[in-house]
Amino acid sequence: VDEFDLIATYFSKTSQRNDIVRSVGDDCAVLTPPPGKDLVVTMDALVEGSHFSATTQPFDIGYKALAVSLSDIAAMGGEPAWVLLGLTLPEVDKTWLDAFSNGFYSLIDRFNLALVGGNIAKGPLTITTQVQGFVTKNAFLTRGGAQPGDFIYVTGNLGDGGLAWSVLQQQLHADLFSASEQDLLARALWRPMPKVTEGQTLVGLASAAIDISDGLAADLGHVLDASGVGATVFIDQLPMSSLLRRLPKTEAAKLALSAGDDYELCFTIPSDNVAEMLSRCQSSQSQLSCIGQIEATKGLRLLSENGPIELDKKGYQHF
Amino acid sequence: VDEFDLIATYFSKTSQRNDIVRSVGDDCAVLTPPPGKDLVVTMDALVEGSHFSATTQPFDIGYKALAVSLSDIAAMGGEPAWVLLGLTLPEVDKTWLDAFSNGFYSLIDRFNLALVGGNIAKGPLTITTQVQGFVTKNAFLTRGGAQPGDFIYVTGNLGDGGLAWSVLQQQLHADLFSASEQDLLARALWRPMPKVTEGQTLVGLASAAIDISDGLAADLGHVLDASGVGATVFIDQLPMSSLLRRLPKTEAAKLALSAGDDYELCFTIPSDNVAEMLSRCQSSQSQLSCIGQIEATKGLRLLSENGPIELDKKGYQHF
Repeated sequence: VDEFDLIATYFSKTSQRNDIVRSVGDDCAVLTPPPGKDLVVTMDALVEGSHFSATTQPFDIGYKALAVSLSDIAAMGGEPAWVLLGLTLPEVDKTWLDAFSNGFYSLIDRFNLALVGGNIAKGPLTITTQVQGFVTKNAFLTRGGAQPGDFIYVTGNLGDGGLAWSVLQQQLHADLFSASEQDLLARALWRPMPKVTEGQTLVGLASAAIDISDGLAADLGHVLDASGVGATVFIDQLPMSSLLRRLPKTEAAKLALSAGDDYELCFTIPSDNVAEMLSRCQSSQSQLSCIGQIEATKGLRLLSENGPIELDKKGYQHF
Repeated sequence: VDEFDLIATYFSKTSQRNDIVRSVGDDCAVLTPPPGKDLVVTMDALVEGSHFSATTQPFDIGYKALAVSLSDIAAMGGEPAWVLLGLTLPEVDKTWLDAFSNGFYSLIDRFNLALVGGNIAKGPLTITTQVQGFVTKNAFLTRGGAQPGDFIYVTGNLGDGGLAWSVLQQQLHADLFSASEQDLLARALWRPMPKVTEGQTLVGLASAAIDISDGLAADLGHVLDASGVGATVFIDQLPMSSLLRRLPKTEAAKLALSAGDDYELCFTIPSDNVAEMLSRCQSSQSQLSCIGQIEATKGLRLLSENGPIELDKKGYQHF
């Protein structure tokens, strides 16, 4: 078994795209960017021991490795197109590779992407994904455009990924959830659907956007820093699943604010654009929640029905 | 110390390029491809324990991580432009990061590239580089165009990288080389200069090209497979340094054929184009050696002055 056999067997599915001049199998892929568009590019890594464990399903690892990069493309309002995969494997396990490849290609197919190249090496299990997409020139979302008075929205629910970590890895509150509910939580953690459609819909309407990977407080904090503004977030407005609401209120809020692994979008939008945004998003049946407002005074303030609250941990710490 | 501090401190040098709309610091970089060109993209990884050891200098790791990807761009005749860096670190060591960053940026600066994004995560030391470059449409080098009668050339010397591994890691033949000669070998191993200029010069002249990373025999084998042809290589024509020639002839030839880690280009060229190629390459003072010829009969045949020889190992095995 060598690198080239593995690529041919697991990572060479043909694509329907017509912008690929050369794909897997030469020193580089050759790709034709659409005329007049800019490229959006991102890279992420999942590392065994940090982002998943030896018991994580290989299908889920393959799915999520690509989902986290697509979520970055979504946060810019981009249209994802081409993918490179860097795979470091301790050994060649064909059952693992088959399931991993199926998970990876499930999102490739879902978004009409193409895996055009990458690298396989021997080493501790690590998956690096690099995704490229397109944006119309000067029409993309950044972290830097939030203005005082803008409303703050998030897509979907927050905290289920963090809840899943607690329940499934640490067995906290495990008695609160049936086996099928634990399966639902695992799904939230391992199979997040990147908000690619929503991100594209927001271009021209939202003033700033980010995807929630490190936790709402930390990621919204990046938007505030980049925009030079502050915000108040209303804890009671945070969208939470019925499963997360079973936890004591403070614990649930903490997961929703700080746990990360949500892969929802957080965006800011001028009040004049809200009606148009809601109308556009209605057709895609996206769940949207207004959770607060941008203010000129820097810093992130958290307000519950009982008054201001303090946050003791700002988000996922990488080191 | 968090991921964002590390990026700001070590990986945010400004660039002179004018095709970068957004660089490090948002969910994605935003880049403007040159009108009418195609993109060439590649990704490679260096893993501690597989590609370097705990004693390898961090400057060298940073340099080589980028050099190997640039070598892929060179093999396609591309002009490298944008770089993403995926770094998995067991811990934050500022001295290490400073030296690593200097090695990485030395090639960024040398080729007028820009580091536009990437990822830092906690985990076993692994460096993933992704490089994008440009080629004129339908004017790039592939592995697939070699024709019977074409001559086979290589740039530079072969086998010094493999000799360095043997001498420095395994202490084989170490008594044959002084300390300063061992430094020269280390330099060949850790600081290969990617043949970017040579690759671009060969576009329109060479019929096929590849960079030599797994060893001449293996990499030329890829060209032969992709082109549906065979070849004879004359062992006595393989370009070797005076240091490598100190080894017994068979051992030296084996390193030149199979050790890999050369990052020279191997290319095939129709006889009608040889004079023009030599003329163009003379101005760039590139060392070029004709080592054999493409034939219709498939397979790679090795010929020494004493007759045919067999090769017992075809190149670097990834697993």
